[in-house]
Amino acid sequence: MQTTDVLGYVAGALTTIALVPQAWRAFRTHDVSGISLRMYCIFTLGIAIWLAYGIVLGETPMIIANSVSLVLAFLVLVAKLRYGRKDRGHGKPRMARA
Amino acid sequence: MQTTDVLGYVAGALTTIALVPQAWRAFRTHDVSGISLRMYCIFTLGIAIWLAYGIVLGETPMIIANSVSLVLAFLVLVAKLRYGRKDRGHGKPRMARA
Repeated sequence: MQTTDVLGYVAGALTTIALVPQAWRAFRTHDVSGISLRMYCIFTLGIAIWLAYGIVLGETPMIIANSVSLVLAFLVLVAKLRYGRKDRGHGKPRMARA
Repeated sequence: MQTTDVLGYVAGALTTIALVPQAWRAFRTHDVSGISLRMYCIFTLGIAIWLAYGIVLGETPMIIANSVSLVLAFLVLVAKLRYGRKDRGHGKPRMARA
């Protein structure tokens, strides 16, 4: 495997895995007021198009990485929509421990 | 320009632009408690490696998109580090208007 391939796989893995702690935090603490709804709408759409790009190219690593990212980004979006209304004075977000 | 190129450019633009509203919101409202520090540490590192990948391949669109993403992700990380301490009982985040 070439160095460039390794760079691509590592970068893809990191930018995919990065969403896990955010999704976890959003569902655990319901504290989503600081999360930008606009970001996750645009981001989720962008990842969906990256997925289509990977499918058209037939690039399996891209298909796998972007499928996982799409699920995770969508989860954060769902958490923001679900718990975001509670932040507008309807209810207190459960505070994170630290 | 082929359809695949268009898909790649659109996806790259969206996943780059997506970070703008999050960086804007973080600095405007100082409300960063819901943002995952771990996400932005991993995400910023991942984008830096995507940038290195683009440089090694000599792919200008990747270099431009990931340079912009790197700055934006780093800004969110700085906002989290700067205002995040205030969320742990030292000061109240300025609430967003809507």
